[in-house]
Parts: sequence; structure tokens; C-alpha cells
Amino acid sequence: MRKNGRHEEELREVKITRNFLKYPQGSVLIEMGETKVICTATIEGRVPPFLRNSGKGWLTAEYSMLPMATQERSQRESARGRIGGRTHEIQRLIGRSLRAVTNLECFGEKTVYIDCDVIQADGGTRTASITGSFIALVDLFRKMKEDGDCEIMPIQDYVSAISVGIIGGQLMLDLEYEEDSHADVDMNVVMTGAGEFIEVQGTAERVPFPQDRLTAMIELAGLGIRKLTEIQKQTLGGRI
Amino acid sequence: MRKNGRHEEELREVKITRNFLKYPQGSVLIEMGETKVICTATIEGRVPPFLRNSGKGWLTAEYSMLPMATQERSQRESARGRIGGRTHEIQRLIGRSLRAVTNLECFGEKTVYIDCDVIQADGGTRTASITGSFIALVDLFRKMKEDGDCEIMPIQDYVSAISVGIIGGQLMLDLEYEEDSHADVDMNVVMTGAGEFIEVQGTAERVPFPQDRLTAMIELAGLGIRKLTEIQKQTLGGRI
Amino acid sequence: MRKNGRHEEELREVKITRNFLKYPQGSVLIEMGETKVICTATIEGRVPPFLRNSGKGWLTAEYSMLPMATQERSQRESARGRIGGRTHEIQRLIGRSLRAVTNLECFGEKTVYIDCDVIQADGGTRTASITGSFIALVDLFRKMKEDGDCEIMPIQDYVSAISVGIIGGQLMLDLEYEEDSHADVDMNVVMTGAGEFIEVQGTAERVPFPQDRLTAMIELAGLGIRKLTEIQKQTLGGRI
Amino acid sequence: MRKNGRHEEELREVKITRNFLKYPQGSVLIEMGETKVICTATIEGRVPPFLRNSGKGWLTAEYSMLPMATQERSQRESARGRIGGRTHEIQRLIGRSLRAVTNLECFGEKTVYIDCDVIQADGGTRTASITGSFIALVDLFRKMKEDGDCEIMPIQDYVSAISVGIIGGQLMLDLEYEEDSHADVDMNVVMTGAGEFIEVQGTAERVPFPQDRLTAMIELAGLGIRKLTEIQKQTLGGRI
Amino acid sequence: MRKNGRHEEELREVKITRNFLKYPQGSVLIEMGETKVICTATIEGRVPPFLRNSGKGWLTAEYSMLPMATQERSQRESARGRIGGRTHEIQRLIGRSLRAVTNLECFGEKTVYIDCDVIQADGGTRTASITGSFIALVDLFRKMKEDGDCEIMPIQDYVSAISVGIIGGQLMLDLEYEEDSHADVDMNVVMTGAGEFIEVQGTAERVPFPQDRLTAMIELAGLGIRKLTEIQKQTLGGRI
Amino acid sequence: MRKNGRHEEELREVKITRNFLKYPQGSVLIEMGETKVICTATIEGRVPPFLRNSGKGWLTAEYSMLPMATQERSQRESARGRIGGRTHEIQRLIGRSLRAVTNLECFGEKTVYIDCDVIQADGGTRTASITGSFIALVDLFRKMKEDGDCEIMPIQDYVSAISVGIIGGQLMLDLEYEEDSHADVDMNVVMTGAGEFIEVQGTAERVPFPQDRLTAMIELAGLGIRKLTEIQKQTLGGRI
Repeated sequence: MRKNGRHEEELREVKITRNFLKYPQGSVLIEMGETKVICTATIEGRVPPFLRNSGKGWLTAEYSMLPMATQERSQRESARGRIGGRTHEIQRLIGRSLRAVTNLECFGEKTVYIDCDVIQADGGTRTASITGSFIALVDLFRKMKEDGDCEIMPIQDYVSAISVGIIGGQLMLDLEYEEDSHADVDMNVVMTGAGEFIEVQGTAERVPFPQDRLTAMIELAGLGIRKLTEIQKQTLGGRI
Repeated sequence: MRKNGRHEEELREVKITRNFLKYPQGSVLIEMGETKVICTATIEGRVPPFLRNSGKGWLTAEYSMLPMATQERSQRESARGRIGGRTHEIQRLIGRSLRAVTNLECFGEKTVYIDCDVIQADGGTRTASITGSFIALVDLFRKMKEDGDCEIMPIQDYVSAISVGIIGGQLMLDLEYEEDSHADVDMNVVMTGAGEFIEVQGTAERVPFPQDRLTAMIELAGLGIRKLTEIQKQTLGGRI
Repeated sequence: MRKNGRHEEELREVKITRNFLKYPQGSVLIEMGETKVICTATIEGRVPPFLRNSGKGWLTAEYSMLPMATQERSQRESARGRIGGRTHEIQRLIGRSLRAVTNLECFGEKTVYIDCDVIQADGGTRTASITGSFIALVDLFRKMKEDGDCEIMPIQDYVSAISVGIIGGQLMLDLEYEEDSHADVDMNVVMTGAGEFIEVQGTAERVPFPQDRLTAMIELAGLGIRKLTEIQKQTLGGRI
Repeated sequence: MRKNGRHEEELREVKITRNFLKYPQGSVLIEMGETKVICTATIEGRVPPFLRNSGKGWLTAEYSMLPMATQERSQRESARGRIGGRTHEIQRLIGRSLRAVTNLECFGEKTVYIDCDVIQADGGTRTASITGSFIALVDLFRKMKEDGDCEIMPIQDYVSAISVGIIGGQLMLDLEYEEDSHADVDMNVVMTGAGEFIEVQGTAERVPFPQDRLTAMIELAGLGIRKLTEIQKQTLGGRI
Repeated sequence: MRKNGRHEEELREVKITRNFLKYPQGSVLIEMGETKVICTATIEGRVPPFLRNSGKGWLTAEYSMLPMATQERSQRESARGRIGGRTHEIQRLIGRSLRAVTNLECFGEKTVYIDCDVIQADGGTRTASITGSFIALVDLFRKMKEDGDCEIMPIQDYVSAISVGIIGGQLMLDLEYEEDSHADVDMNVVMTGAGEFIEVQGTAERVPFPQDRLTAMIELAGLGIRKLTEIQKQTLGGRI
Repeated sequence: MRKNGRHEEELREVKITRNFLKYPQGSVLIEMGETKVICTATIEGRVPPFLRNSGKGWLTAEYSMLPMATQERSQRESARGRIGGRTHEIQRLIGRSLRAVTNLECFGEKTVYIDCDVIQADGGTRTASITGSFIALVDLFRKMKEDGDCEIMPIQDYVSAISVGIIGGQLMLDLEYEEDSHADVDMNVVMTGAGEFIEVQGTAERVPFPQDRLTAMIELAGLGIRKLTEIQKQTLGGRI
């Protein structure tokens, strides 16, 4: 039995607070159990060099953790003078996931910045970042549409993400840190509201895993995604 | 008249939430109006080289702002690869201010880390960081005393900080961002609970100021500090 | 039809040259079509801080491309002063993949360095790096066993990697650069000689993909892995 | 009694050598006792981004110490790859102090660079830098006026700076390094020729200090500033 | 007697493979004994700031070693975050040497990039880089001339480089690593096909050397250069 | 005719001021015409890793220019965050040159730091740095010998350096900046008091040069070195 009587196929409690910050056009605090991430979406009027004069926009993401978000204080990347490999990996994943549902051709040569700042980390910070940033992104685009900065909504579908893992031979959905650190296999899945895949990343942390476990993990992830999509729909109230 | 009907000599609403985060021994969310800072205090078992084998401990502070804490998104210092001058200046100030009331000789060769992360910036982030970090620091030391990690409480007095300024010829306490950006003179004052000075930093942003304005600003700051000390006492409940 | 009359389910020509360099204990030039990577394995007598006094060893990987390995000259990461996100991602993947088949507990507190330097890039450099490094790693361990530096062979199974993709609706194995840049979905799979998964990374580059395509891609990858394992067995001559 | 029979309220010997270097338009060697700083002022034809197309100019300062300016050799900031917090703090102070008396609107979109390089450090390097740079700045602007690069003299008043401190309960003006390292309170004051404040920075190094000491220190600083202004007037010969 | 029965005045076996890589316009693998360097020449359509609007082109060189090119694994400069002094010195030498025979005024405002990547280092990597890069550079310019990107061949003469040294009192040509590490004097000489000097760099590694040894070393270097020029001529087949 | 009526074979006026700074054990201001360099020598009680437990000492040099030492203000290397190639090249040359006359085995596992800071640059800063640092080094070792920190004087011979060049076909000794910028060939020579070579670096800046010019330049350099050695002897007063 998991903490708080949670079942293997159950998500932690998900709480999404919109308009969490004063300045950004889209800002969300997403809580998945004890994991807490501030996700914001803002837009600036320029694009990376490879898109100049293309008429297309861009979306990029940055991810960071407060030094005290984790059990052991971690050194700030600003103090170390460089961004670590794990951070690079995560912010590239967040960016790819949101770009997959964004129409980059209908808001001009501008860049959407997604900022995910982890206030408290208890496992699943990258998946929570994706799920929460989607809400912030929709809020940004809704304001842009109201202000006439884009004619149509540049969002093509919902997107959310969840982790699954195998701990002691048992499949589990939405791992906490404690579970994650004992997992034999750890998988992160990013899917659309329509149930299609954007990203599948499965890693054997301890022992390689066979085909049937892969299939079962993907199925369990799909279950989680359907619940998250439902929560996103309720949060956003009506069609995107 | 200031925003929300505030008087010139009035603080913004101060709200201090203790135990804001799960992992650090001391963690506080301090809100002064719209300014919101997470302050944490943790301890690690080593000291900088200049204190090795001295038997003394150390206290150091780090300060950072989320990119979207301000009206315009600011670039992450981790992405720029270095910490800017303003950040250096502020974290050195926070460190000096808290060391001035800390007995560094009674908890062994350990380092207290104060982390101040600004979630939302509406003026006065450095002074809020000092006032809030003091609470986190006391919470850390109380736990250390309970755990037998120090025999006596290593805190000698309260410490808090406040800004004063002159805007359009008028003295004002506790400036918001909008006020601060129009101030002719900007002063930050750090004082103890006993009403003595730890740090006085006054800067003529536009025009030099005469002796009598300096005296008046220092007096007004003292008024603010007395109120903040009172709030700290109530928050901490009883003697430190 | 693919270049050189290759079928959708066919690997490019694989060529592995052992002992390619003079100094390292294990060194391999792996060529998959026009993609060419030098993979070396060496060992040094220390471990990262988190393993000190644990009695265990470590394995880490570094990956780099010559500036002229690609069609457009890319700036050296040494000249830019930092390692990019893509490089971080790839070298972490190579390290994880090889650690998954390595017994880190039987060669003492030492670190194996895997260096993958891409001489020419025509798609699939990360998967070629894994497949080639495995050979270099076995060569290193064989020498260590001969020299009495480890009692048993610290390798538990073969490991190799391959890409699959969907281009214009068609599944293809082992993508060249030209194919990769037109792919709708790109997947990299790392598997053991026993046919189990170490890593599955699938990314929708353009459009999300449904469950049945995921299943088909994983199956096709398995086919490629079986061929690569066979080539590794022939190259190494006999049991590892 | 202080070194060389100096009184508590006495400045060290001040020596200002104009045109110390061959190339810069303004260059000064300022000596305050054993403290020696080369201050130069030069101008370049561009401004920081936030001033482009504003018609206004800018003034910025850089500060550095030779490795052997101090008793213990200090590592070069170029070798460490970054500028330390103390340097940032000081160069920001120098820049603010000189901007406070400079009319930035009458020499076009250009930037004045103030470079302060400490050859020998015996306390008070930041205050000597401000006092000396003022002379270099006037020399630069005089040449610009002669050359027709500005119509009116862009200087509004004299500016100089001095330290005061409390050592063993005794107020002292213009601290040497040895005194500074024993001071309980250390204050730096920047004032105009008209006797108004530009910057007041007082720090309790050891024990907090009461209101009356603050007042006394500010008064003593004023005395020092009046003497420095007199020296600046004699050095520059006539009205600025 | 030297390794492989080589005489004091004999070069190691020189092997130059043209068109070694697929993408760059000029690419060469040069082998001098066990020393192996990949040299490439490519061109890009911009020049450094100091040449903008000058109508002239530029040529610059970069040099790097694979971590496992040497006996002991060397840390990557990208991982260290900066280029070391030795690398700077060598790449500046390569650039100067090739610019000395290149007419920078006949191919427009473009920059030639010479990349020298050492695959295996057994002494003389900088001289091999110069000798090999010359071939890559000619191949680049020949293609440019064919494509009409320059009217005349922008090469004025052959250029090659060789080392000489004094080991145990004995002059030797073209030092291997083992010899180099025992040399009392080490000299690198860069000369044109016409037998004139471009660069002479002689260093007393252990003991200063007299005039007659200097003269003898320069003469021996000339002998080596004549042989290398001959090899370059044969490799390039006909006049440059 | 050269500036100030100087002959082609004449040095600029050389002025060496010993004990220029208060703190370092050896410190010299060397002026060669308008070129001015502060050279210091200090010692610290540790050696680089490759010399630990060897019983031997080390000598290393650092070189820097003030931003305003040159006609155009140059950016500080500390602000750029890295040391440029030219600086690396020069400080390596200074270190090698002084090590060549220093007995590193008679003062224990310590490191001598040579710091050369160019106050004003008018050509020949690297050669002036070597000539001046030698004096600072002798002063350091004399104090060490007096203090009993070394039994014998760890200096084996004088060392000095000078430039020669060919301008408009004419050989010239000790080039000023203006001459250097028009030179076809530029050579720096480092020699001992006994007239032997430590370093010879000749570079064809514009056109390759034949053997007889090389010989003539080396001879002219020898003439300059003999004069510099004489000046060093007079400065140091008696045998080293």
C-alpha cells in the first residue's frame, strides 16, 4: 500500500491555481501531492536566429529548482556558472511537448517563454511542469486572442504528462520521490487529449525490462493522462 | 495619497507564513504587500577555508528572483552563466545583516545557508528578505537546540529591515516598485530589536540630499523597524 | 526506396574497427553507413564524491562532434565555453545504457570513461556511440581481467542501440540524416542481447502518434537490435 | 595616537597627479597615504541598449586591484573567470556617485568609462577611486569642451568620498587597512562640493551602533569631504 | 639510433589522405608516424568586426585534441569551460602560418576556418597541423575557383612546418613524443616552398643554447621543409 | 630616423625602479621609453599537482594590461570572463624564460608568482616584462636567502629579452608600438647573461624572410641583450 492509502493506479491529489503571479500573462501553481511548481507563460517580440524572416513564432522552456526544493540543499546553477545536464534534458522535453500542440504560425515572429520553477520537489517535477505549463499557455493565448494579438487560438489539443514505474515488481502511477528512488524502471509519458503520444521515455534504472512490462506501463500512463486531461478541462472551463 | 489609502508612514500589510516548505529546517514565505519572498535557513557541516580549524561557524546568504517575478521577464542568471552585480550586492547585505545578530561561536564548524527566492517583486525585496530570513533562522536554531546541536540559542537580538525614500519632496516608508522608480532618494536601513543600526544605505538616485533629510529618513526607518520587530515577536511567540 | 537500395527494415552497413587508437585500452571506430564515431574506454583510479568509500566503481560517458562532422560547421563547445543541451542529453544516455549492463561492484573504486567523438555525422550518432562503446568497453575489461585488475568480467549482457522513425507514414529502421530531418516520429531504443529494454525514447517531431505505431516501432527496433547483437558477437569472437 | 602622529579627525596625505598616463583623455594617480589608485576617464560612441535612441549618454565604472596590491596575493578575477561580489559592489558605487553630478544629456549617445585600478591598497580604495575619478572626469570633459564635443561642461558639482569608523570606541576619519580591520563600524560617505549627500553606507562590522554614533560619524565625514573638495579645487585650478 | 631505425635527419613516414571527410570542401588526414591529425578547410560568408566593409577576407584556425589522443586521458576543454593556453598558442600559430601564404583580398568578405583535430598525438601535432591544413586549404580554394567564387588562386606559395630538437647533445629532425619529452631544446620552424621563414620558435626546455646550435637547428629544419614541400607537391599534383 | 633621434641599433631609455610596491618581496617598475610595466615576485607555500611530493618548487607568471594602457580602451579580461590567446601566449613565455635560469630544486615545494601588469603599452611589453621580472625575482630570492628560506641563491644567470624587427627593409632594435605595427617581420629574443638563447620567436607579419635576415636579426638582438644585461648588473649592484 502506498502513502496516504493511494492505489497503484491512482494519481496524487492534483491542484492547479491559475493567475498565481501578478505580472505574467499566464501563471499557474501546480501541486501534485507535495510536488509544487510555478509555471508561467509570457511572450516577447523576437525569435531565435534560425526563424528570422520566416513569419513563424517559437516556444521555449526553462526549468529550475529552488536550492531548498529538495531534501539536500542543491547548489544554484547560477552560482556554479552553468546549467547541468539534467536541467537541459528537462527543459528541452518541456519545450518539445508544448510545441507539439502549438500552432507556431499564427502569432507572428514572437517567442513564448515557459518558465517552470520548482518550489518543492517530491517526484514528477518534469511531468507536473508540462501539465501545469499547458494551463499557463492557454491563459496566455486567451489573453492574446482577446487583445487581438492572434486571430485563432494557437492550441491544437490538450497536453499532459505523467510518470509510471516498476517498484519491487509492481507497476505504479505517478511516483513520489521515495518511490522513484526505489524504482527498477522509470517512464515518463507525454500525451495529447486525443490519446496520442508526444513523448515516451522509459529507462531501466536497475534491470532491463521485457516487452510486456513496457506495454503495461504505457497503458497505465494512458490511464493517468486521461484523468489529467479531465482535470485540465475542468480547470480551463470549456473548450480551448 | 498612496495606493490602497496607505499613509506615508505606514507599512504595507506584512504576512509571514512559517514552515512554508517541507524540507528545510527553517522556511518562511514573507509578503509585504505584493512583494513575496521565500526565505529558508539550513545548515551544513563545513565552513569556508578561512575558518577551518577555528572552531567557529559561518552564515552566508543567496538571493535570486524568478524570471517572471518582475514586470519584464528577466534572464536567468544560470543561463547567463554568472551572477549580476545587483544580486551580489543584495546577498552580501543579507549575509552581513544576519551575521550581526548571530553568535557564530556556539554551533561548531558549520555553515548556515540563507536562501531568499523572490516569487514576486513589488519593491523592497532585499529588506523583506532580511526580515523574513530572520524568522527562518530562529526556526532553524530552535530545532538545532531541541536536537542538542547547540547548547544556547545563537541569536543575540531581532533584526529587520525597511526602505524609506523621498518622492516628490515627500518622505515615505516601505516603497512599492512604482514609488521606488520615482524616488529621488532611496534608503535601506537594517536595525536590531534594541533599535541599534546594523546597516544604513542611502543613495541619491536623482539629486543629492541635505543633512536634515538624512536625519528624517533615518527616524522614519526606525519607526518602521519598531513595527516589524513587533510583528516578528508575535510571529515567533515569546522570547528568542 | 531508400538510398543505395536499402529496405525499410534494413540496417546500413555496419563496420567496427577495434584497436583504432594507440593509447586507450579499448578503442573502436564504428561506421554505420556514413556515420563514423571513435569510441574509447579507459579507466582511472578515482570515483565521484557520492561513491567515495563505497567500494563501488562508476562509468561515465562524454560525447562530442568535430566542427566539420556536419554539413554546416558547428561552433566548438570549448570555444562557446559550455556544453549544449543536446550533448548533455546524449552523453547521459550513453552512460546510463552502458551502466545498465556493467557490474560496478567488481573493479574497485575506479571510473570508466567512455569517450565518443563523432568524426562524421549522417544520423544515428548517439545509437552508433552506444553500439560501438560496448565493444571498446569489453576490450577494456578483457585487458583488466588479463592484468588481474578484476576477477570476473564486469559485463552482464550485450547492449546496442538503434533508431526507428516514421517518414511519410512509413516505418523505417536506422535513419540517415536526410531521413531523420523529414521524420514525423523519431525513436531511439537501447536493448540488451537478451532482448530486454534499457531505454526507449520516442518523440513526435511533427504530429502525435497513436498506440499501434508505437508498438510497431518498438517491434522494428527489436529486429535491428538482434542484428546488431549478432554483429557485436562476431566482432568480439566468443562469449563476453 | 595613529600612525605618523595623525589625529582622529585628520586625513592622510592626499596627492593627485594629473595626466598620469599617455593615452586616456583623463588620467589621475591618486594617493591617500599608502593607498594608490590609477583613475582614468575615456569616452566611446555608444550607449547601453536601454538608452539607444534616447539622445542621452551614460557613465559606467570598472574597478580592479593588482594581485599584489594587497598583503596576500589575490587571484586575478580574469583567471577565476568572474568578477567577485566586492568588486561589483564597488564599481556600482563609483558609477552611481559620478553619475549623480554628471549631466548625461549634453554629450550625446556616448558612454564615459571610468577605470579605477588599485596599484597599492592600504584602506579606502573605493573612496579614493571616487575622489580621484572626479578629477579624471573633469579633465575628460574639459578636453571634450575644447574639441567642441559638448557645448557646456557636463559637471554639476564636485564629488568626493571618505571613510569614517569606530575603533575601540573612538571615531576616526579616513581609515588605513590596519585600522579598518579592527573597526567595529565602517562607514563610507559620498558628498558633493555643496555639502549634500550622494551616498551613505554604514555597516556594523562587529556590534550594532546607536543613533548618536551614526550622527557623529556623518558629521566627521562631512569634515573630511570639505577638505577633499578644497584639494580638488586646488588641483583643478578654478571653476569646473 | 632512433625508433624504427630512423636517422637523425630523417622525417617519420608522412601520409596524407585527401577528401577524408564527406562534408567539408577541403579535408585531409595527415599522419606523421603515429601522429594523426584531421585538417579541414571551410568558408563562411562573414568576417570579424575589424574587417567589416574592408572588402578583405580572413583566415582563422582552431586546434583540439581528442581526450584519448594522448597517453593519459586529458579533460575536454568544453567540459573545463575554457580553452587552455597551449591550445591558444597553437591555433594562433596555425592561423598566422597559413595567412602568410594566403591572398586575403581575392575572395571577398569571407572567413576560412581551418580545423585541426588531433586523433592521435605522438609529437609534432602543431607542425603536422600546418602541413596538412595547407593541403585542405588548397583543395578548398580549387573548389572555390571552379565554382567561380574566386578568380585567381588565393595561394602564394607552399607552406609546411617541422620540429627539430637537441637530445643528449644530438640534433634531431621531426621529434616523436618520447624524444620531445627528453629534449634540451625544442624548435618549430614554418617555411615556404621558396625556402623563406614564416615562423621560428625555439625554446630552451632545460639549458640555454649557443648561437652555433641555433644555426644548425635552423639548417636542419630547412632540410625537413624541403622534403615536406616535395610531398605536398606530389600530393597536390601540379602547380597550386 | 626614429623618434627622439634614436638609431636603428639603439635601445629606448631603460629605467628600473626597485621596491616599487609596499607588499611584495620583489617589485619593480620597468620603463622602456613609454612602455611601463609593474613586475612583482612573491612566493606561496604550495605547488601545482604534478609537483606534489617531488621536493621541487615552481615558477609561474601572469600578465595583464590595464584597459587604458593602450590607445583604444580594451575590455577587461575579468569582464569578458576569460583570458585571451595573446595573454596566454605572453604569460607562458615569461614563465618559461625565468624558469630557464632558476634552480627550482633549492627552495622547497613552493611556487614563485611573477605578476606583470602593463600600466602603459608602447610596444615591447612582453620583453620588458621579462627583463623587469628578473630584477624582482632576484630581490625576492635575496630576501629569502637572508631569511634562511633558501641556502643558496636559486638564480643561475641573468635573463633579459628584446625585440627586433624589419620595417621597410631596415632592421631595428626595440620596436615602439608605431614601428611594430608597420613591421614586416617581428622577432622576440630571450637570452642569458652568458649570451645563450632561451627563446627565439620570429614571425613574418607580412612577407616571409630569408635566412640572412634571420641571422642579422638574431645578431642585433644579441647586441640589445648585452646592453640590458649591463643595466641589470648595475641595477642589482654586484653579483647575483
